[in-house]
Amino acid sequence: MKNTSSIQAQFGAHLKKLRLQSGLSQEAFADKCGLDRTYVSGIERGVRNPTLEVISVLGKGLDVDIKELFNF
Amino acid sequence: MKNTSSIQAQFGAHLKKLRLQSGLSQEAFADKCGLDRTYVSGIERGVRNPTLEVISVLGKGLDVDIKELFNF
Repeated sequence: MKNTSSIQAQFGAHLKKLRLQSGLSQEAFADKCGLDRTYVSGIERGVRNPTLEVISVLGKGLDVDIKELFNF
Repeated sequence: MKNTSSIQAQFGAHLKKLRLQSGLSQEAFADKCGLDRTYVSGIERGVRNPTLEVISVLGKGLDVDIKELFNF
């Protein structure tokens, strides 16, 4: 598999930006998604590798289309 | 976690469409990605839940930006 180590960092940074724009705290956002706050924190820091299902949940939690999460 | 069962099916169908447009067989595409053909088949059929890293590899294999994979 090709090296794509930066995709997690890019995705996480963009997710954090969108979350902050939405005015949600990390905890409020995690609760809305039904995910653990530490897991959301790890995604935002680019150290977790979320699945498609989780990515979909993150989009719903921000009330944005999933493709917006990749608009970076 | 909210129910998002259809996201895998939507993603897989769109991926297959893009692959066919690119003229790649499933096997040639899988080889290009460094993934097993049966795994790519499962993604296309919506029965696998690829991670962000794998999604990034799929985009590179099709020479498209990752956001194109969510343009459905």
